[in-house]
Amino acid sequence: MTQEHLVLFTPSGKRGRFETGTPILTAARQLGVDLDSVCGGRGICSKCQITPGYGEFSKHGVTVAEGALSEWNSVEQRYKDKRGLIDGRRLGCQATVQGDIVIDVPPESQVHKQVVRKRAEVLDITLNPSTRIYYVEVEEPDMHNPSGDLERLVAALESQWQLRNVQADFSILPQMQPILRKGGWTVTCAVHHADAGSDPQIIHLWPGLYEGTIYGMAVDLGSTTIAAHLCDLRTGEVVASSGLMNPQIRFGEDLMSRVSYAMMNPGGDQEMTRAVRDGMDALFTQISAEAEIDKSLIMDAVFVCNPVMHHLFLGIDPFELGQAPFALATSNALRLFAHQLDINIHPSARAYILPCIAGHVGADAAAVALSEAPNRSEDLVLVVDVGTNAEILLGNRDKVLACSSPTGPAFEGAQISSGQRAAPGAIEKVEIDPVSKDPRFRVIGCELWSDEEGFWEAIKSSGITGICGSGIIEAIAEMRMAGILDPSGLIGSAEQTGTERCVLDGRTHSYVMYDGSAEGGPTITVTNPDIRAIQMAKAALYSGARLLMDKFGVDKVDRVVLAGAFGAHISPKHALVLGMIPDVPFDRVTSAGNAAGSGARIALIDTAQRAEIEQIVRQIEKIETAIEPRFQEHFVNASAIPNSDDPFTTLKSAVPLPDVNFNTGGGDSASSGRRRRRR
Amino acid sequence: MTQEHLVLFTPSGKRGRFETGTPILTAARQLGVDLDSVCGGRGICSKCQITPGYGEFSKHGVTVAEGALSEWNSVEQRYKDKRGLIDGRRLGCQATVQGDIVIDVPPESQVHKQVVRKRAEVLDITLNPSTRIYYVEVEEPDMHNPSGDLERLVAALESQWQLRNVQADFSILPQMQPILRKGGWTVTCAVHHADAGSDPQIIHLWPGLYEGTIYGMAVDLGSTTIAAHLCDLRTGEVVASSGLMNPQIRFGEDLMSRVSYAMMNPGGDQEMTRAVRDGMDALFTQISAEAEIDKSLIMDAVFVCNPVMHHLFLGIDPFELGQAPFALATSNALRLFAHQLDINIHPSARAYILPCIAGHVGADAAAVALSEAPNRSEDLVLVVDVGTNAEILLGNRDKVLACSSPTGPAFEGAQISSGQRAAPGAIEKVEIDPVSKDPRFRVIGCELWSDEEGFWEAIKSSGITGICGSGIIEAIAEMRMAGILDPSGLIGSAEQTGTERCVLDGRTHSYVMYDGSAEGGPTITVTNPDIRAIQMAKAALYSGARLLMDKFGVDKVDRVVLAGAFGAHISPKHALVLGMIPDVPFDRVTSAGNAAGSGARIALIDTAQRAEIEQIVRQIEKIETAIEPRFQEHFVNASAIPNSDDPFTTLKSAVPLPDVNFNTGGGDSASSGRRRRRR
Repeated sequence: MTQEHLVLFTPSGKRGRFETGTPILTAARQLGVDLDSVCGGRGICSKCQITPGYGEFSKHGVTVAEGALSEWNSVEQRYKDKRGLIDGRRLGCQATVQGDIVIDVPPESQVHKQVVRKRAEVLDITLNPSTRIYYVEVEEPDMHNPSGDLERLVAALESQWQLRNVQADFSILPQMQPILRKGGWTVTCAVHHADAGSDPQIIHLWPGLYEGTIYGMAVDLGSTTIAAHLCDLRTGEVVASSGLMNPQIRFGEDLMSRVSYAMMNPGGDQEMTRAVRDGMDALFTQISAEAEIDKSLIMDAVFVCNPVMHHLFLGIDPFELGQAPFALATSNALRLFAHQLDINIHPSARAYILPCIAGHVGADAAAVALSEAPNRSEDLVLVVDVGTNAEILLGNRDKVLACSSPTGPAFEGAQISSGQRAAPGAIEKVEIDPVSKDPRFRVIGCELWSDEEGFWEAIKSSGITGICGSGIIEAIAEMRMAGILDPSGLIGSAEQTGTERCVLDGRTHSYVMYDGSAEGGPTITVTNPDIRAIQMAKAALYSGARLLMDKFGVDKVDRVVLAGAFGAHISPKHALVLGMIPDVPFDRVTSAGNAAGSGARIALIDTAQRAEIEQIVRQIEKIETAIEPRFQEHFVNASAIPNSDDPFTTLKSAVPLPDVNFNTGGGDSASSGRRRRRR
Repeated sequence: MTQEHLVLFTPSGKRGRFETGTPILTAARQLGVDLDSVCGGRGICSKCQITPGYGEFSKHGVTVAEGALSEWNSVEQRYKDKRGLIDGRRLGCQATVQGDIVIDVPPESQVHKQVVRKRAEVLDITLNPSTRIYYVEVEEPDMHNPSGDLERLVAALESQWQLRNVQADFSILPQMQPILRKGGWTVTCAVHHADAGSDPQIIHLWPGLYEGTIYGMAVDLGSTTIAAHLCDLRTGEVVASSGLMNPQIRFGEDLMSRVSYAMMNPGGDQEMTRAVRDGMDALFTQISAEAEIDKSLIMDAVFVCNPVMHHLFLGIDPFELGQAPFALATSNALRLFAHQLDINIHPSARAYILPCIAGHVGADAAAVALSEAPNRSEDLVLVVDVGTNAEILLGNRDKVLACSSPTGPAFEGAQISSGQRAAPGAIEKVEIDPVSKDPRFRVIGCELWSDEEGFWEAIKSSGITGICGSGIIEAIAEMRMAGILDPSGLIGSAEQTGTERCVLDGRTHSYVMYDGSAEGGPTITVTNPDIRAIQMAKAALYSGARLLMDKFGVDKVDRVVLAGAFGAHISPKHALVLGMIPDVPFDRVTSAGNAAGSGARIALIDTAQRAEIEQIVRQIEKIETAIEPRFQEHFVNASAIPNSDDPFTTLKSAVPLPDVNFNTGGGDSASSGRRRRRR
């Protein structure tokens, strides 16, 4: 009997005993150690590189002698001479066990290397792409036992890679025979694994060993912008990212105006489908050019989007989404060919579209759920993706609820008298001195505050052009803290507030943030209609969240995650003063950045997460705000700043909220009406 | 407790006891009685019509009283008033059990009605098409429980028709929402079932109840002609049949010349693919026009063809089929979309291509195996499909062997001095008087023999233009029986044979069948090169069969089936005299007609038979004649008429085969060469 030796793998810690002469790759496979290989152990792909450790490993109770691995054989030596190997590295398929040995598997030799590490409560994401490459040696045809070339290729994938029931895309058939012969009956196959239950599909062939990589694209298709990340499917890394304006903007700025366009113009939905698909294809071309890769190497794409974009991208008239009961054509995830969406990448490239949660809660919200994983949270988390619509998720390990609330575009600076998109020259941060009631601010493109030395010089080129979404929120919150604004949303007069910056503006007052008239610039004021627009938007957001809390049976949450580009710029304190979100300590409000985009990338690089999000979405309890009687009540309460019903005691213990009231019986009737109803 | 009554169904004989008030359709379903329904028991489709029987059924021991079925209800009455019902018929979904009852299910109410009855040893073919239609009522969208319209449609198909994991073709999505609303949340779905293991796919929707039918096409794609049968997938009946010349003929008459064309002309394979696909699409259009049906109602198509046509139709260069080892790109059956083959029928129509058996034994041979089922035969059957190549199957319940043998085009009248295709004016039947050595014959287009009164008048318009494939076989066999031709294939001289019809023709003799010179017509002779051409063809055929017999370990077969158009015209006696087929009694040689086309139709109307033929083909033992050493030996022996080695004792006991020898030492050297080698 041959002698057996201990083989211990790090970092996994997996160990086993193997006979003398067992290749390290074989030992790894038998123990389930994650060690890569494309060529199937033939010493040509070098993906199975390992680092043997020698000497005393007291922690593991192993001592490794000099000759614990076999000498370099000719295959390994030839590889090293030709391609080079890092010092201390060996090829796992060639080096064999000769004594007790400790083997370290470096990250780049792991198939399922960890590529996205999220916060602790979120599942680690490992590399597990839908499309992978496999090198095989195929039996030559034999007249004594006739079978098709494809059938022998499929048999090779089964015997050499344990892939069962492999199918081939129809496009493989015309090219396969010359490729097999060119490669001398060796071939590298790109194989698509749609999901655990379906048969693997050969989608590309290269003669011999293909040493390059293949790519996938993760796309966040928004109403305004399309953002895409090109990922290397062999490493999981983002190779290039880019974005472009959604070309549908010419049919309407917001979703409902696009739905209207489709309703009013026969064929309008098809025009918009054409526009977004053309834009998408152009974006794929652009990113491929930037990354200097062959576009046809993109073999998978994942898309997330809101329901209206979802339908328009798929070529479905969004008509039904424009009216109750807001019926989606389909809510399930979709597995398609990219060419069905007119995207010209690899001809057999696949496309995956995440499931929609409900008629107003789309695949983008599903992607946020995948990325932020409220379903895995120990504490109760509220996740808010702020855009034209706010998608709101509330949950923990027990259950997750979701709704959408129509915040409108005010948070993006639209419908605001001096509002503008976030661009150089826009006021983005504001502080108001509670005594002098004078503001200081920062504008995009300059790190200095307006009262700091050099500010005016620094902003010379951009000027001060307006106020962006985060700027108006900070301005209003600061006005409330400085006693310039009362809880009902009325700006006080110069008399009431003690500052000449409060000026009469029609029947109400405005607060002058910046008077550029002397320099020929704009005068930037916060008007009472601006306050009203933000009140409507934040009340919609808060009342959606509050409704989910009702349904969950709680009146507080443990933490709040703000997702989306807007969420990244918003200040927790100001959001809380405004009463946009439920009352939590400032440090329990965090930003998740582009969580929808992250979710798309997760689904791209780890196919197992597709089943995961499909399962999560099925379990999410969907709440339709439009038909919930309490929504209106919450909305009215949430119109006050911060709220006329919820106490916001945590907030009030941290910041002053002067108890002012600028309603003198006349003035803004709607505002006084709200106050009457409150009693 | 409610009372139970006996319900007995005919013709199945199934019986069971059911409570008062059970609808007959429900009883049928519970007993597994084959009773159709499209509307799912709503009294609108009338597919579940049954005929109740009343009175004494002594055979079954049942007496049926007057009130054994419920009175006509309003649904049933409305149907009868509006659409009419045959006297005595009831709707099985409306009529309920009230007493012991005998129910006859007429053939048109059976889903799996038998549509093809073959010989007893062959499996009965029942209607089980890939694509079926289902009427469902779909739940309306509900904001309290949001889900996609598709998800509710799928749920309806599951709950109302027990279809699991239904998917929808991508093309369904854009049209579904308006159709569901137009039909008032009722819809008829065409659902494709690819095979037992795969998920059903919705491929078409009609609002409300669709009362029409859907179609499929069974196609035999030959080198020379394409023949297609349009079948009603609801009844299995052939609605229209048509054919056209394979447009590839302009690239080469036979297969090998087409393979050569592809080799010699870059892009030649694609030209031929284009040609055959254009022809196919034209044929589909033509048949649809003839049948006056909407082409887009064709939702399935089955194709059988030889390996070269298979590759060219699929867009695969047939290069490898032109040289050893004759490697097919793929031999397995293919499940495709018709549009992938550029056939413009229903946009989601499917296509099924039967598996190939080996590099020279194609999907057409597989179709013959499906139709003639040698694998189910108790006795040992040889099935021969005679064309430019002969595909040969030998087997019984134990095993089936297959090979192909290159017979060349002589059997089709090509390479014959007076040969022509089977067309009016061609001699198709021949008898030679053994005493006078004079022939009489029949020509295509006339039922009279040439020595019968009125013959010359009757053939005036066509004239006598040549001799077709079956004619030359009969002529040569008759010459052999009349002692004009010796076993080696030499025609005797006038002296040796005693007839002036044998004339010197170069170094050998010819037999003058008809001298039309007086009337300005052709002189039709059988020349020694004609004999040689037929000898080569029949030796190839026989030696292929003989090789399979060797492999099977037998030296006789029980019966012979001749498939193909040629097989339908060949006379068993003459085929045996020539030694084309192994020695069996004349009545054990039968013709199967277009067995390949029948196989295609079977696979079209009974999807279960697709798995069956895939299984059969996997089990067939493939023999490559080119590499079998004994093939050459059998070929040499089979060059003699009937054979220089096999005794043909059965044949010889039935017909005279004069023991003549016209070799005088000189003459045809190849022939004498063969004779020498025989010793």
